[in-house]
Amino acid sequence: MKSIEELQGIISKKINGFCETNGDREIYQPINYILQLGGKRLRPALTLMAANLFSDDIEDAIYPALAIEVFHNFTLMHDDIMDKAPTRRGAKTVHEKWNSDVAILSGDAMMIQSYQLLMKTKTAKLPEILKVFNQTALEVCEGQQQDMNFEKRDVVSFEEYEEMIRLKTSVLLAGGMKIGAMINGADDVAQQHLYDFAINLGLSFQLMDDYLDSFGESSKTGKQIGGDVLSDKKTFLLIRAYEIANTEERKILDQYIGNINADPTEKVNTILSLFKKLRVDADVKNRAQHFLDRAFESLNALDVNEARKIHICNLAESISTRTH
Amino acid sequence: MKSIEELQGIISKKINGFCETNGDREIYQPINYILQLGGKRLRPALTLMAANLFSDDIEDAIYPALAIEVFHNFTLMHDDIMDKAPTRRGAKTVHEKWNSDVAILSGDAMMIQSYQLLMKTKTAKLPEILKVFNQTALEVCEGQQQDMNFEKRDVVSFEEYEEMIRLKTSVLLAGGMKIGAMINGADDVAQQHLYDFAINLGLSFQLMDDYLDSFGESSKTGKQIGGDVLSDKKTFLLIRAYEIANTEERKILDQYIGNINADPTEKVNTILSLFKKLRVDADVKNRAQHFLDRAFESLNALDVNEARKIHICNLAESISTRTH
Repeated sequence: MKSIEELQGIISKKINGFCETNGDREIYQPINYILQLGGKRLRPALTLMAANLFSDDIEDAIYPALAIEVFHNFTLMHDDIMDKAPTRRGAKTVHEKWNSDVAILSGDAMMIQSYQLLMKTKTAKLPEILKVFNQTALEVCEGQQQDMNFEKRDVVSFEEYEEMIRLKTSVLLAGGMKIGAMINGADDVAQQHLYDFAINLGLSFQLMDDYLDSFGESSKTGKQIGGDVLSDKKTFLLIRAYEIANTEERKILDQYIGNINADPTEKVNTILSLFKKLRVDADVKNRAQHFLDRAFESLNALDVNEARKIHICNLAESISTRTH
Repeated sequence: MKSIEELQGIISKKINGFCETNGDREIYQPINYILQLGGKRLRPALTLMAANLFSDDIEDAIYPALAIEVFHNFTLMHDDIMDKAPTRRGAKTVHEKWNSDVAILSGDAMMIQSYQLLMKTKTAKLPEILKVFNQTALEVCEGQQQDMNFEKRDVVSFEEYEEMIRLKTSVLLAGGMKIGAMINGADDVAQQHLYDFAINLGLSFQLMDDYLDSFGESSKTGKQIGGDVLSDKKTFLLIRAYEIANTEERKILDQYIGNINADPTEKVNTILSLFKKLRVDADVKNRAQHFLDRAFESLNALDVNEARKIHICNLAESISTRTH
């Protein structure tokens, strides 16, 4: 039974090995760059943890786990272009360091490489695994599409927002766990419990992300605090604020949100103060906890010796108390 | 034994069916749009033709053929962003009709869909097929990378240019034919002959493309004549012109190539006249013929009843006389 730290260690080593194999040909430089910016390696760790639930031998799950991580970083590379994000994990984004064309093309190559990694796994279940991977990958794109659409819309409901983050964030965690479980022989019921666990964990994770973007510490998150507010992103916080604001408060929101002439610092300070006043910071944490509780329900329902679940439990708990 | 027209008919029908399944959700609209702009369906036809060489039953090669066509159109969607191309097959490019973000994202989804299509084939050789597909896909990206690099460079050699078009154009034809042949039981030697055939056919095809971009008819090609000249593209024509131009002629080239202030009509007319004078239009046709001859050498070496090769021969011949 491997802890999250041990698994992260395995993944980092394998990622470095992968980058070395890539070498420094131009198209691979941005791939190696984004992969070596670090990150929590949460997705591949979950894939391996799912495999580890059913066997001590997680060897066959390592390449699929890497595939999930490389795919995830490909989506970051392309999403950053669309979001015009200047930084990622405290460093320049690929399209800023190189340019958009490079970020498009290296991202494409990266997606293909995620399939190459997936293919390296030795299992007769490859067609089944690929099916889950394809479906997951497509849903992630659909989530990004919805996210972009929300930017153009005035009103987004909670249901729509949560469906978007389910697609954009949760399904990759869930698909990865399902694949990890499949490889080590989990039955359909067990696979589904883990899938549901990861969907809810992902929702909880993303809502904490929304929280941290507004109320975290820049030095820990590696992101500019208030970035979501500044770019008028319809996060849980903003949707909730609009829902409960009185006429006066709504005026303040309307005055700043979507106003490209507003002073950035003033905008962030005013909106974050309003969020605090309306207690939407507490609301988003509660909602994150709600999904975490549901995640644990699925984990509890999973018919596996409780002792084997310990590391997954720890990881899930750390989501709710995380600061970055 | 099916003719190119019969195969194109099968492919078009399947492509339409695929688009119907996609429905009209936003992310799929650009996918259906670009797929239904038409095109010669050369790549999937070659995949099916390769399969047809070894058996009358080409059923199992149809999904891989569609995967090749969908992948090809994905590359067009992304390349058009990078090339800032306004039109494709006489219609607006996706990033012009929608925007770049849509073209990036729908392109990503399209690449995933090409894997979904590939997966639908019923064969135990799937891992082998996927390996060829992945390798091919990555090489296509490498070709596009080289193409972009050439734009920034002053000098490109013939060798470099032909290596770029081998990657950007030929390998997808070749990978497709190899997969088609594999599915219907061709041995390694036969697969290699077909691979080599397609590599050379692709080179010939691309050189004819260079020719037609400068000397074709806009109504037939669906492209603006002289587009390559206008965008200073280092095609065979320009590389050859620089090679054989005298001091006076080189001055003319230098005056227009890379000059963003040059009048577009004047630039195209002057450069095309110079190409004619230097007879580089004949040179590129000769070089295309050279590669076509080599393609036929590989086809002749293939140990298959000559009668079965008839449709592939016809297709290859049509490359050298094509007008669009």
